[in-house]
Amino acid sequence: MTVQGLPMVVPAEELPARVRIYEVGARDGLQNEKATVPTETKAEFIHRLADAGLTTIEATSFVHPKWVPQLADAEELFPRVSELPVALPVLVPNERGLDRALALGADRIAVFASATESFAKANLNRTLDEALAMFEPVVERAKAQNAHVRGYLSMCFGDPWEGPVPVPQVVRVCRALMDMGCDELSLGDTIGVATPGHVQALLLALNEAGVPTHNLGVHFHDTYGQALANTLAALQHGVTTVDASAGGLGGCPFAKSATGNLATEDLVWMLRGLGIDTGVDLDRLIATSVWMADRLGRPSPSRTVRALSHKEQ
Amino acid sequence: MTVQGLPMVVPAEELPARVRIYEVGARDGLQNEKATVPTETKAEFIHRLADAGLTTIEATSFVHPKWVPQLADAEELFPRVSELPVALPVLVPNERGLDRALALGADRIAVFASATESFAKANLNRTLDEALAMFEPVVERAKAQNAHVRGYLSMCFGDPWEGPVPVPQVVRVCRALMDMGCDELSLGDTIGVATPGHVQALLLALNEAGVPTHNLGVHFHDTYGQALANTLAALQHGVTTVDASAGGLGGCPFAKSATGNLATEDLVWMLRGLGIDTGVDLDRLIATSVWMADRLGRPSPSRTVRALSHKEQ
Repeated sequence: MTVQGLPMVVPAEELPARVRIYEVGARDGLQNEKATVPTETKAEFIHRLADAGLTTIEATSFVHPKWVPQLADAEELFPRVSELPVALPVLVPNERGLDRALALGADRIAVFASATESFAKANLNRTLDEALAMFEPVVERAKAQNAHVRGYLSMCFGDPWEGPVPVPQVVRVCRALMDMGCDELSLGDTIGVATPGHVQALLLALNEAGVPTHNLGVHFHDTYGQALANTLAALQHGVTTVDASAGGLGGCPFAKSATGNLATEDLVWMLRGLGIDTGVDLDRLIATSVWMADRLGRPSPSRTVRALSHKEQ
Repeated sequence: MTVQGLPMVVPAEELPARVRIYEVGARDGLQNEKATVPTETKAEFIHRLADAGLTTIEATSFVHPKWVPQLADAEELFPRVSELPVALPVLVPNERGLDRALALGADRIAVFASATESFAKANLNRTLDEALAMFEPVVERAKAQNAHVRGYLSMCFGDPWEGPVPVPQVVRVCRALMDMGCDELSLGDTIGVATPGHVQALLLALNEAGVPTHNLGVHFHDTYGQALANTLAALQHGVTTVDASAGGLGGCPFAKSATGNLATEDLVWMLRGLGIDTGVDLDRLIATSVWMADRLGRPSPSRTVRALSHKEQ
């Protein structure tokens, strides 16, 4: 006996017809792995993700290899995937990273800011405003090259040092990133503490501050099991870009036993049940996550992957 | 450095002010354990759950010991907890079970029906209507003794043999259980396949069929990671009773690698963030689940338990 089929498709009121999944497993997931994954495996992973129907796949980060040795092979990796017919944003931390990315023909970049002073201090040894000032020429030069620019904003809901993060503070930094020229923002709940009311409050406040919802993505972590409920709340407020990580790859470095990114498969299961189009082939995606889990030597934390890969056995 | 505090409290629109958590760990959780837990441990578990602020704790099942040997000690256990100042419903499968429960002074009972023919056949070797007929005298006699009666309805969204379960079929069985005299129903997603639109559709159909939402509880499984998103959808449609299992105890026997019941801690985290009163002391509850996990010899699958118990170390 096996559990039959997929969820029954029953649309809910006032949800978008289509959601773009912004797949972060290859970058955000693998940069948090202790062991560095071979370039060939990363390239195959990204090819498989594209084959599974994902249309936006963050490929790597052009950060200094000293900081993130796991992604030191960005120059080797990017040309191996750049011909794929999907959007392949790459993270750039500064102008040097931007130069490296543009030299390889990257046309979508992302910068990584934070909503809190503490995280800017810990991550960049800068004040929040100094960090924003650092991104300004990066965004400006990227836009001058017609690149699409995403601004990540971490710690939008809680910060490991500061605790809950006030909504107006997040709005101020979002506003600054949009004014700088970012095309879209990704609102990150880096430590996974947000709940649906907080998500809605931030989205409403951003709308009031003139940051339209169609420029916003959400990036939830499942540390406290809240990621999918928060995603539903975001969809109900018009968000159509959701970050997720195939197989739930990646974690929050501040809560090692906890799970990290929302698993793409759990998200696809919900969206499929809601009749929301994502273009993703769930079977292929699960096969990809099982394949990657084998390479990493441990099972995927995605509940959907565990349930359905068990079924196949 | 530790992750500070709890979620920021931000209420969302149109949610109930208070939610009753119907704690199922001691019955639904422990009946799915391979090893039988000692009666003394079960009693301490229930006492600890009550100390943590849970006000409805399903204590055990008066089922034949041959069927569920894990709960064969119902007669020994119940008197050890019956003086607690909380509601202590017990499961009764038939009139014999009802006699045993009433003889010990139980004043809240639950019967366990199914929305599908296949499950009635597999579980009780009866048709659905035969199963309902079997419950009729149980409910009638319980009501005659002024006992509160809950009707569990399993397989409300998907069935391992039949696949998706049509909403009208679920409505028919719910209607039959209410007409029989049940005070409340618990809508179970036993195999965890439901998504939020399906949940809302069932609740709306039940309302239209004259089953008021205040008589309904929801019982979600986290097999595909959907339980908390489905809970949010149910709360948005007026449900105020949510079943959950401390530490996420218990699983679906048909998907052994998958997780089972919604973890009470993950639920409390969301409700606390939403400013919804539950009366539960999360720290005490987590300490209880960690204590029980030690006795069972494996970690809790609750993400909140894992995140916060790690933090304490």
